[in-house]
Amino acid sequence: MTQVGTSNERSRPSAGDLFLEVRDELQQVEIRLQAELRSRHEQVDRVVRHGYRLGGKRLRPALLLLASRACGELTDAHRTLAVVVEMIHTATLVHDDVLDEADLRRHVDTVNARWGNETSVLLGDFLFSHAFYLASTIGTADACMLIGKSTNRVCEGEMRQTLAEGDLSLGEDDYFAIIDAKTAELCACCSELGAMFAGADDECTSALASYGRNLGMAFQIADDLLDLAGCEEATGKSLGRDLAKQKLTLPLIHARDTLVDGPRNQLLELIKEGRDHDALLAQLSELGSLEYARQVANEYATKAIRNLNVVRDSPTKATLQKLAKFVVSRSN
Amino acid sequence: MTQVGTSNERSRPSAGDLFLEVRDELQQVEIRLQAELRSRHEQVDRVVRHGYRLGGKRLRPALLLLASRACGELTDAHRTLAVVVEMIHTATLVHDDVLDEADLRRHVDTVNARWGNETSVLLGDFLFSHAFYLASTIGTADACMLIGKSTNRVCEGEMRQTLAEGDLSLGEDDYFAIIDAKTAELCACCSELGAMFAGADDECTSALASYGRNLGMAFQIADDLLDLAGCEEATGKSLGRDLAKQKLTLPLIHARDTLVDGPRNQLLELIKEGRDHDALLAQLSELGSLEYARQVANEYATKAIRNLNVVRDSPTKATLQKLAKFVVSRSN
Repeated sequence: MTQVGTSNERSRPSAGDLFLEVRDELQQVEIRLQAELRSRHEQVDRVVRHGYRLGGKRLRPALLLLASRACGELTDAHRTLAVVVEMIHTATLVHDDVLDEADLRRHVDTVNARWGNETSVLLGDFLFSHAFYLASTIGTADACMLIGKSTNRVCEGEMRQTLAEGDLSLGEDDYFAIIDAKTAELCACCSELGAMFAGADDECTSALASYGRNLGMAFQIADDLLDLAGCEEATGKSLGRDLAKQKLTLPLIHARDTLVDGPRNQLLELIKEGRDHDALLAQLSELGSLEYARQVANEYATKAIRNLNVVRDSPTKATLQKLAKFVVSRSN
Repeated sequence: MTQVGTSNERSRPSAGDLFLEVRDELQQVEIRLQAELRSRHEQVDRVVRHGYRLGGKRLRPALLLLASRACGELTDAHRTLAVVVEMIHTATLVHDDVLDEADLRRHVDTVNARWGNETSVLLGDFLFSHAFYLASTIGTADACMLIGKSTNRVCEGEMRQTLAEGDLSLGEDDYFAIIDAKTAELCACCSELGAMFAGADDECTSALASYGRNLGMAFQIADDLLDLAGCEEATGKSLGRDLAKQKLTLPLIHARDTLVDGPRNQLLELIKEGRDHDALLAQLSELGSLEYARQVANEYATKAIRNLNVVRDSPTKATLQKLAKFVVSRSN
């Protein structure tokens, strides 16, 4: 696994080939997103159009669309719901960027720096609201219920993570519970919606939900690893966002739990001070903590692939298998 | 109309008598809100329970419940939706309080001061998400659609308002459009949901929606008036929140448009400087601008009462009529 470039999930994807089967539908998602994120009021329009540019790799809509095709037919409901899940994901990105007093002092350059916290909060709300409205237009309350249940957990996960910032005693179980709620939950929701609205039976729908969850876990562990070790090649650049916020991720938790006494305290000091990133990375590497996190991510990817066993063989199933491998080997 | 006390909509109501007919249901709303705003995680639980205490006068659930009873039978769907609309309203309050850099410097004491912006944003999201989820549990997507359409407009209104801060050329039409979207829209949604789920016909449902909208307009104009002139009796206390944010409301717009040339510029300077609140109020009073805003609020209240003409006479209809008068005569 090479670790170069930035870990910013918002940079444009290179996953294009994997999404070829649903390329047309993903293009429709783009068109629909651009059409939804508009306002008749010029000033508001300028802000909400920005919401479109904040989008990520479109992993979540792709997951939903591929899951539908792996289980049956891709319908209009899927096309709408693919837009919905991307809007929700973008809303969480926008709200993640809302600045605390400390961040403001550092003048981090995000959408907030441009318009201020208030506008960012409202842009996220606009995205959430439009997402829920769109979900309600497909004719049944089923999607609203599944999505609402998921976002309930996402919010709880985000809140746990924020409250855990600076907690250097965060356990591995807490870390897994947090990423399960804040990331894997929405991925599970995407693949479950895909299966459900393709008319898949309960076994298949449940398998797809588990696939999405395990894929989401693998994705987030890999993402956290990139945030931490993606800086290796870019010495002198700012520390990873997680470390700057004293947000413990898997390699740090592993290193802390591997060490005892003096060396353990030294590591904690290094994390707290947040200055010598190279020394920290060297120690994580020496302790096998980066490798450990990679292994755990791979295990989740393997579980995801295994979840697909009950799905009939097809080119789309093969794509979903490749996607699970891709999320742990990506470089941005 | 007496104007004493604070204009803070969050202070506890004295509208109790008007809500007597739905007192039991409102108590159930309280119980349900307390039950929904919980988490298994202690730290998260402490934050989300705070969401309960931020609630207002429960005007919106009362409106929904009274509308249902005026049009037919109050059902379980109404009981659930009453919780939903209060959660949405509370979410907007929480997000309204998210601080900009300027506010942070002033160290305004809100939920943000206690936990920081990030946690406030997530608490609002938690409330939004739980509200949408709850709305999806009543068996049809109709409520989700109506609520989603409303929150789309609420978000747009909030955004327009935020972007208009400091714009001393804001027109009366813009002001009405903003309060229609940010306040009247959700009130219209409440009374429409009440009628719709009581099985009212289209004419009656539409009349109730208009009633809610006009009531909301009257309510917001009166609220803005209290924020501005409620300080009269409390000289020396801080200026109203709107004025501190250079948010023009109806009396200020009226005064600006009544004056020309030098006096007009002097007024704008007084608003910009934000120091001599007494002088500003004296001028607004002299120009009849406070009285003008009161009149406009009364006109909306009268329109709301007229909207009820198509509804059959009943004690609940009489209560809704009184409620329209109450929102323009309240003192907090």
